[in-house]
Amino acid sequence: MHHYWPVKGAGLLRKPYWGNNHPEELQLPSRSYKRFWSEEDKGSLSTLCQVNFELEFEPATRNKKKMASSRNPELRKDTVFNRWVVFSPARAKRPSDFKSKSPANPSQNASKCPFCAGNEHDCAPEIFRFPRDSTSDWKIRVIENLYPALSRDEKLQPQLQNPEPNAQNQCTLSGFGFHDVVIETPTHSVQLSDLSATEVGDVLLAYKERIKQLGCYGSIKYVQVFKNHGASAGASLSHSHSQIMALPIIPPSVSVRLDSMKEYFDRTGKCSLCEIQPEELVIDRSTHFISVVPFAASFAFEIWLIPKDHSSHFHELDNEKAVDLGGLLKLTLLKLSRQLNDPPFNFMIHTSPLQASDLQCSYSHWLLQIVPQLTTIAGFEMATGCHINPVFPEDAAKVLRDVNV
Amino acid sequence: MHHYWPVKGAGLLRKPYWGNNHPEELQLPSRSYKRFWSEEDKGSLSTLCQVNFELEFEPATRNKKKMASSRNPELRKDTVFNRWVVFSPARAKRPSDFKSKSPANPSQNASKCPFCAGNEHDCAPEIFRFPRDSTSDWKIRVIENLYPALSRDEKLQPQLQNPEPNAQNQCTLSGFGFHDVVIETPTHSVQLSDLSATEVGDVLLAYKERIKQLGCYGSIKYVQVFKNHGASAGASLSHSHSQIMALPIIPPSVSVRLDSMKEYFDRTGKCSLCEIQPEELVIDRSTHFISVVPFAASFAFEIWLIPKDHSSHFHELDNEKAVDLGGLLKLTLLKLSRQLNDPPFNFMIHTSPLQASDLQCSYSHWLLQIVPQLTTIAGFEMATGCHINPVFPEDAAKVLRDVNV
Repeated sequence: MHHYWPVKGAGLLRKPYWGNNHPEELQLPSRSYKRFWSEEDKGSLSTLCQVNFELEFEPATRNKKKMASSRNPELRKDTVFNRWVVFSPARAKRPSDFKSKSPANPSQNASKCPFCAGNEHDCAPEIFRFPRDSTSDWKIRVIENLYPALSRDEKLQPQLQNPEPNAQNQCTLSGFGFHDVVIETPTHSVQLSDLSATEVGDVLLAYKERIKQLGCYGSIKYVQVFKNHGASAGASLSHSHSQIMALPIIPPSVSVRLDSMKEYFDRTGKCSLCEIQPEELVIDRSTHFISVVPFAASFAFEIWLIPKDHSSHFHELDNEKAVDLGGLLKLTLLKLSRQLNDPPFNFMIHTSPLQASDLQCSYSHWLLQIVPQLTTIAGFEMATGCHINPVFPEDAAKVLRDVNV
Repeated sequence: MHHYWPVKGAGLLRKPYWGNNHPEELQLPSRSYKRFWSEEDKGSLSTLCQVNFELEFEPATRNKKKMASSRNPELRKDTVFNRWVVFSPARAKRPSDFKSKSPANPSQNASKCPFCAGNEHDCAPEIFRFPRDSTSDWKIRVIENLYPALSRDEKLQPQLQNPEPNAQNQCTLSGFGFHDVVIETPTHSVQLSDLSATEVGDVLLAYKERIKQLGCYGSIKYVQVFKNHGASAGASLSHSHSQIMALPIIPPSVSVRLDSMKEYFDRTGKCSLCEIQPEELVIDRSTHFISVVPFAASFAFEIWLIPKDHSSHFHELDNEKAVDLGGLLKLTLLKLSRQLNDPPFNFMIHTSPLQASDLQCSYSHWLLQIVPQLTTIAGFEMATGCHINPVFPEDAAKVLRDVNV
């Protein structure tokens, strides 16, 4: 698939481009991409370039002033995840900032895919399927992960609720937990966004049902639902699936999020996600949900889907809301795919601990976070926990509001 | 470069392999890599496979029991960074867990490299060089980053030390700060580990000198030194360099680390990094430093270089210790390169805030963290802050202790 930019003269092209075509295929003026496709950089061109073709063909050093963006860099604090993000528009012009990646789903070889209908015997045991009484005509299967990160061997269940450090001040816990896979469709070539709103809703209801089952284990503290789409986002099989991991601890980022939402609640008397979202950050609204680019998005084109009414646990989702969210999730994924050339992405459901107190529930509001994989996490981000985002959230929201799908 | 494993029969091959060769080049029995190189996975083989060739050629489901590792998964808590890590030996057998990556430094085209001696005019302004009075014979240059994430425009200096949320409860700060580059050598093809101990020490002293300069700005709270080596670790130019970013905030991960080290200190009366390291985690010792795989390493083959004597700020490093650390850093990088086939890596210096109090200094101990890029950060890690590490730290330490360089 080729993407042609309408190039009519000098100026700043703000249309984000994602892909790995040679610039010549993009019909840009020949001198415009000089700095985007040198021998040195071959293979690292691509992905979300803000191509400033008026300037890029002059030597960069002599144009430092001109190249500076009209906007200054800015730090913003995310009050949900309690982290600072550096918004750095100048970085968007740096070609190698955006690593070469292929579209997410190149492999369509279904012959050996264990997730395809008919190959159920190649999978680890099934936990349940939708519809319940289906045979070969199943629509969704929830199965064990063949390579689980945690062990469901009940002998490993921790004896202590809160492990104490040993004599060497080391703190360990046996790796009891669950690691399941949700096969979202029986058909290899179908992606989640190809399903109908109702069908996507059924996937969400499968998550809900499994979370409720896992909640019966007293030693399971938190359930993480996530989807990796595309190899560079961590997906090992191209057949559309998501994962559910049940943990014997409250993960560090969840504790930080709860503390941060509590701090906001204590300071303002309000839940931070019940607050009215600024219009310039809103992408779409459905009956019960809203999609926004968060004010301090850590990643370019990061999106949150948020229930309009306060709800602390994802598994409170009822059937009507599941279809409604299914439709908004489908729309959002289609927009990302259309705008950013089917990027690899992750989505993650951020919910509350299974045994959350009433007080915790008053300030904890669940959300579904979608992160397209457009940039690399490198030393700075690993060390500081600060992300550098080249795209201001209000710009990303405008682009995503305007995509036609 | 090809890596041949000595294959003599059935059993568990524990030698980590990093690279992207086809298994046929590895001289393994033909059926051994069936699950490691299918059409489906083409391109995702490689990197640190623990190839269990006794088992892999049978259908995976029927061998679930056999495939389970002799070791159970285990969670460990890192008391420095306050995070839980899932050690999951079974995941090491999952081929697609380890993404296909090329060795770090494929590009050797020096003709247009702005960091090479002679091309200084293509760079942003120089801050200083070593030796001070050198002309074309410089050894190290510290320069401005041409694409800085922060702006050194002093007009952007924050007025308030601690920014308050606005009426919409949004917290922002203008993007004042510094983003510098340390060119570690004038020669394009020379890597940091090719330099002598004294020369690596000089690079460390360049960091120190620049940190001390940046400490003169009252609004700079923290200085992050880091190196990205290899494109997939985030390096945009192959010429050996590192980066220094001076921030107007204490970054989130630094606050978490300080709180966690304080908690340890309050509980035990000791600095967590002054504690004697268990022998099975030690890789090497120099006069003043020790290299270890941390007890709860987040990443496979993660390494920490730790000063033996308590020191809260990296920039307390004196000339003698710089040479000593230079030698240990060189040795460690050579070992990683030899053992893991020149992997992309990041290193990061974790120090204390510039204006740390005496109390903070009593429990905060700086370290240099090295992370080879062998796995992908995906939805689970992004959501929870928990990492899944397939290699137990004592196994990684043993391997690295035994490498001959």
